Amino acid sequence: MRRLNLSRVARAVHDEAEITRAAVAERLGLTRAAVSSLVEQLMAAGFVAESGKTFSGQAGRPGTALTMARTGHAGLGVSVDVDALTVCLVDLAGTERLRLTEAGRHAGADPRAVLRDAALLTGRALRTAAREGLAPAGVDLALPGLVAEGVVRQAPNLGWNAVPAAELFAQALRDDGAQLPVGSDNEANSAALAQLWAGAPGGARTFVYLSGDIGVGGAVVLDGELLRGAHGFAGEIGHLVVDPNGPDCRCGSRGCLERYAGQDALLHAAGVDPRDGIAVLARRAADGSGAPEARRARDAVEQAGTMLGVALSGAVNLLDPETVVLGGFYRELADRLAPAAERELQRRVVSGLWDAGSGRLSTASPAGDAARGAAGQVLRRVLADPLAYGGAASAP
Amino acid sequence: MRRLNLSRVARAVHDEAEITRAAVAERLGLTRAAVSSLVEQLMAAGFVAESGKTFSGQAGRPGTALTMARTGHAGLGVSVDVDALTVCLVDLAGTERLRLTEAGRHAGADPRAVLRDAALLTGRALRTAAREGLAPAGVDLALPGLVAEGVVRQAPNLGWNAVPAAELFAQALRDDGAQLPVGSDNEANSAALAQLWAGAPGGARTFVYLSGDIGVGGAVVLDGELLRGAHGFAGEIGHLVVDPNGPDCRCGSRGCLERYAGQDALLHAAGVDPRDGIAVLARRAADGSGAPEARRARDAVEQAGTMLGVALSGAVNLLDPETVVLGGFYRELADRLAPAAERELQRRVVSGLWDAGSGRLSTASPAGDAARGAAGQVLRRVLADPLAYGGAASAP
Repeated sequence: MRRLNLSRVARAVHDEAEITRAAVAERLGLTRAAVSSLVEQLMAAGFVAESGKTFSGQAGRPGTALTMARTGHAGLGVSVDVDALTVCLVDLAGTERLRLTEAGRHAGADPRAVLRDAALLTGRALRTAAREGLAPAGVDLALPGLVAEGVVRQAPNLGWNAVPAAELFAQALRDDGAQLPVGSDNEANSAALAQLWAGAPGGARTFVYLSGDIGVGGAVVLDGELLRGAHGFAGEIGHLVVDPNGPDCRCGSRGCLERYAGQDALLHAAGVDPRDGIAVLARRAADGSGAPEARRARDAVEQAGTMLGVALSGAVNLLDPETVVLGGFYRELADRLAPAAERELQRRVVSGLWDAGSGRLSTASPAGDAARGAAGQVLRRVLADPLAYGGAASAP
Repeated sequence: MRRLNLSRVARAVHDEAEITRAAVAERLGLTRAAVSSLVEQLMAAGFVAESGKTFSGQAGRPGTALTMARTGHAGLGVSVDVDALTVCLVDLAGTERLRLTEAGRHAGADPRAVLRDAALLTGRALRTAAREGLAPAGVDLALPGLVAEGVVRQAPNLGWNAVPAAELFAQALRDDGAQLPVGSDNEANSAALAQLWAGAPGGARTFVYLSGDIGVGGAVVLDGELLRGAHGFAGEIGHLVVDPNGPDCRCGSRGCLERYAGQDALLHAAGVDPRDGIAVLARRAADGSGAPEARRARDAVEQAGTMLGVALSGAVNLLDPETVVLGGFYRELADRLAPAAERELQRRVVSGLWDAGSGRLSTASPAGDAARGAAGQVLRRVLADPLAYGGAASAP
């Protein structure tokens, strides 16, 4: 019971950013004495600190505000993308303290080599963390594929099948002299959680998250909880069929959304060299001129938006979310992409709510990406059971 | 607290069908004395009865088994279909005690007239209930459309828009001399709950339910809870797009699943007179001969199965359910329909689980339909707060 209450108090301080003991007591329905004792233990263990500010609450006597500690326990997230590695370090207060990104060519590469690179980058982050007095309680991988219990069942765009990613990464960390618990998740899941925690558009608690990348990542948040499904593979919006007789997809199906709105398909349709990438496409599509290149880029983005709208109408009819959040490179293309998708949603969402404007496409907050979400997942585990993370964390 | 515990004890007796006080105490972590007192109150209020059997449990002293009362509180469900009305009466133990069905032609009919007919049929059920010593605590409508707070927002196959169905039905009941709380829900939602409560195939707690009827109804159950979505309109699988350029749908979209696997489309493709209906189609499709009629029927069912599989692959990729339960007339056509759908699912479900056999189409249990689910919804409300339903229910 005390264990649970330690978590509840830590969560209350975390969620409010700054709060007095009296307000915590009121919020949780505990006595002030109980809260004071719990806070004392959390302070001793390095979770909570006094901010120095005092508040005179309704209850009279001024109280010293509590905040989450800026040193000690922290979370690390590592996203492994087809073309990059990103490591993100987040402190207990949820502040991003470090971000390292390294370009790479991971399609078809040996998973061991990719995860060794990820471990080396993580090592650099750990050394910086130590200098800042932060001690990561764990590190979570965000991976572009189907992930269950640390194993990548399938990541078509990496070319990975049945790769024990968490184990390989933990081994590579040990080889580099670091010993940390390793977790893993699908990268769209991690990014969707990052959106939720950063405050999704309109404060939405039920939304579909869609991320444009080499593949099209998807995740579903229902009432503030990630939808995982029976085997952990829910949210694969990129493989909703938009044309049953369409082109073959790497997943084995045909006519998947990814074949119309994934990066390769989009650049190909727009006649943009894959090495130039989305930035060039976005620049050309924003060019309002009659130049053939510009027109082709605009048409390609609009066509991708239309197909996105067709697939999303299915997701909206099935899930009835408050909003659909567009992340990844869809953010850069949203000006032209979103209206095309909205047109399809207005025609095809059976409740008519999309038409009436209750539902709307929105763009992802830059404060929430997969690496940050993965770091947040580590922190959520710490907050769920502070006692399990022992005494005051000290930098390694 | 006592109020909550009354509900927990009532639920325990309901779920176990027959259970001793000692076993209830163990299951709920309450003392035997507390359980005895709660049971006494539930017996006095007519919820629980002694079955007459005794069990000698582990704990030594033999105990008298408790069951739910076979008289008193009951639930009524009414499903309003395009071509029929069904009233179902269920007692506290979950046993179906009465079912009345009346054919009708409701497409385009005045909602007031349809709901008046439903009230008259309900009146007959109420008189039978009274003779059996049953007093329905309420009546829930199951309606083939988008329903929120008693109002049918849209039921394309009935031709209803913004119809305050619960209010109109309650008024018609009062005109007939009956006064009952009226609830309402989408009929696929009610049927899916009935499937869950009757025990879904393989004991599934996370499944997609799909019902073939004039329209194609759909509902989603996640971990034993109905998915409602942000506005109550989740589960509209019938309007997943299988061909963006397909035929117009009554919902305003194009190429919806319903246009390929709904009753009208299926009968048309098979060349079966709509007045002959699904029974004739099923008979022809089961005819293994080379007769042109039989071949056309088989082709039509297989084509519908293929389109069903395309749409379901999207639902499975999004939700990752344990199974998909086929109800309505899909049950009668399952022999030929399901294999065609499975073929698409095997190709298109990205996790590969459908291929490996972890996921499977299954057919609905005959014990769970929309009217029965609606009656069950009334009973769940009673069990959630027995105290609110006052003293011993007596037949009106």
